[in-house]
Amino acid sequence: MKTRKLTLLLAVSLGLTTSAVAEQYSTERHTVEMTTLTENLSHPWGMTFLPDGSMLVTERSGTLNHISADGSERTKISGTPSVVAKSQGGLLDVNIDPDYKQNGWVYISYSEPNQEGGDGNSTAVMRGKIDDGEWTDGEVVFRQAPKYESNAHFGSRLVFSPEGHLFITLGDRYSRMEDAQTLDNHHGKIVRIWPDGSIPEDNPFVNDDEALDEIWSYGHRNVQGADIHPDTGELWAIEHGPQGGDEVNIPEAGKNYGWPTITYGEDYGGGEIGIGTHKEGMEQPFYYWLPSIATAGVTFYTGDKFTQWQGDLLVTALKGQQISRLDLEDGRMIHEEHLFKGDIDFRIRDVEQGPDGYLYILSDQDNGRLIKLSPAK
Amino acid sequence: MKTRKLTLLLAVSLGLTTSAVAEQYSTERHTVEMTTLTENLSHPWGMTFLPDGSMLVTERSGTLNHISADGSERTKISGTPSVVAKSQGGLLDVNIDPDYKQNGWVYISYSEPNQEGGDGNSTAVMRGKIDDGEWTDGEVVFRQAPKYESNAHFGSRLVFSPEGHLFITLGDRYSRMEDAQTLDNHHGKIVRIWPDGSIPEDNPFVNDDEALDEIWSYGHRNVQGADIHPDTGELWAIEHGPQGGDEVNIPEAGKNYGWPTITYGEDYGGGEIGIGTHKEGMEQPFYYWLPSIATAGVTFYTGDKFTQWQGDLLVTALKGQQISRLDLEDGRMIHEEHLFKGDIDFRIRDVEQGPDGYLYILSDQDNGRLIKLSPAK
Ligand SMILES: [Ca+2]
Ligand SMILES: [Ca+2]
Ligand SMILES: [Ca+2]
Ligand SMILES: [Ca+2]
Repeated sequence: MKTRKLTLLLAVSLGLTTSAVAEQYSTERHTVEMTTLTENLSHPWGMTFLPDGSMLVTERSGTLNHISADGSERTKISGTPSVVAKSQGGLLDVNIDPDYKQNGWVYISYSEPNQEGGDGNSTAVMRGKIDDGEWTDGEVVFRQAPKYESNAHFGSRLVFSPEGHLFITLGDRYSRMEDAQTLDNHHGKIVRIWPDGSIPEDNPFVNDDEALDEIWSYGHRNVQGADIHPDTGELWAIEHGPQGGDEVNIPEAGKNYGWPTITYGEDYGGGEIGIGTHKEGMEQPFYYWLPSIATAGVTFYTGDKFTQWQGDLLVTALKGQQISRLDLEDGRMIHEEHLFKGDIDFRIRDVEQGPDGYLYILSDQDNGRLIKLSPAK
Repeated sequence: MKTRKLTLLLAVSLGLTTSAVAEQYSTERHTVEMTTLTENLSHPWGMTFLPDGSMLVTERSGTLNHISADGSERTKISGTPSVVAKSQGGLLDVNIDPDYKQNGWVYISYSEPNQEGGDGNSTAVMRGKIDDGEWTDGEVVFRQAPKYESNAHFGSRLVFSPEGHLFITLGDRYSRMEDAQTLDNHHGKIVRIWPDGSIPEDNPFVNDDEALDEIWSYGHRNVQGADIHPDTGELWAIEHGPQGGDEVNIPEAGKNYGWPTITYGEDYGGGEIGIGTHKEGMEQPFYYWLPSIATAGVTFYTGDKFTQWQGDLLVTALKGQQISRLDLEDGRMIHEEHLFKGDIDFRIRDVEQGPDGYLYILSDQDNGRLIKLSPAK
């Protein structure tokens, strides 16, 4: 606890310091100021805003933080579930219930150890409430099946549809990539459930005895980014491809997005994957990156602060160290801008729009940061 | 004539030499071999294929060449009209009639001097026949109005619609850019006529007494590239923007594409142009480049040689020294590849698909070249 207090004081002091020297970056349509609100976050992964403007921010190592709107105060929530914090696994996304003000539910995704013991793990989603800094009433609403021994490709983004469904994006667990094409498992799938874990009766495979009822779409690799289109209400999902071939998809009920049978990427080292880029019955992406930028989090921008970015899709990149801005008009992409590319030296795990219309990003570092983006005055 | 013969011999010998050392370029999906077929072309601008596989190729300085399929033989067509060969002006595009085998009509676009004298000029289109190396039966089927003293922004690409209309893409003559928003002139317009110069009765402004009847669409800057989409039959047009803001548009009858009121570009030197990027009643582009690559010629690829490029739009760049490949799926652009970028040191004025399914490009140089692109074995 002593260490934590010291860190807190340090964060406050650094917060003030860095705020004073906020850096500016030129982009095509806005000059953007980056202000570090919080430092010393260990690989922060997901964040969401509470009604009072404060934030919940996860650290992959297992900590759920409650951070004040200006970043100066940080509280660790105690009692969250244990996670398999190895490689890509750990505590991942966090979101709040659409009716949070009434019911107080908070949802977290994480790599859950096998409850029956052994080395297997998989992505699970728990909901719980936060009472005076403590996680209470926890209940698991989804468990990716089967458990499998792998520390990679957990997917894990949590988004709510306008009708209140919870979409959970998943990964193929890397060495189980072939499972993405079969429906008797949750590898390489996007699933749709009600927030209490029950199955929507209009899910595409509820009447198929050989398919798992939670499945919404399949043939995905590692879907780490997702958001709901502000006008159409559709789910947009961004998946991390192999070497080349990161994809934006607009997953529709029951459709097959091709992995690993078709892809625009190639294997690390240069080998061919699958049969090529097209196959009957498999969907083409909305957009793909080649070479890969290593996509992660994503948000549509709908605020009033970055007026020239309204309606655009912002996609964070890990290896690519940038935010890709897809300039969207009437559902078409008319231009791509690589924000901050070559100007920053950190990977970006997530981006969210705050209730204030500013943008907030998480840097994927040992000493990771919560950074506020605002247009320069 | 002696000089010409010498050039011819030189071209033949160089042709053999360069063919032997054809250079290979890696791209995402094909390794591409470039073979120089003809050299010593003075800023070649447009080309088209005759039924026997030979080509007509313009030089901006005023020469129309007939070149054999392998590039080894080159004949200058005599008797073509005089052109204002200054700066961007000169002999520009060439195309043949859809019924060429029956009627022998060849169409050329060029900067035509003011017929009443004075310094004005504008884009004109003449059709004629080629008889034993001589241009005969010449008749002007279109004259851009008004004539104006400028050596810039002639547009000039010639394409035929599936119904047999002739589309002529035009420029705003640079200092007359405001004219692109008014319909009493041909500046900054795309026009549609019948090949004999008569007006299609369903042209969008034929019943508007204040508008010129040839106008198909307006609000363009300098449209140097155009082709017909192989599946939809729609006109696709590529215009060279100011600093930034090159655009692909799919011009529809009577619509306004915004220049110079809206644009994604900025003035050379950095000033603002127009009112911004959006205005009610003005169309958004299908795609835009920022920074500008300086777009020129364009073709849809439909051949059987570059199997991975089928259905894609290839756009040549001058300053950008590349071909932009827009990977199209179901009318959407899902990826852009910058072919040859950084690997070549010449501007590319035009690209055409040959009847053999190979691609042919023109380098925009004093000693310009006709180059064949083929996939490496
Ligand atoms: Ca896919
Ligand atoms: Ca998000
Ligand atoms: Ca425009
Ligand atoms: Ca062409």
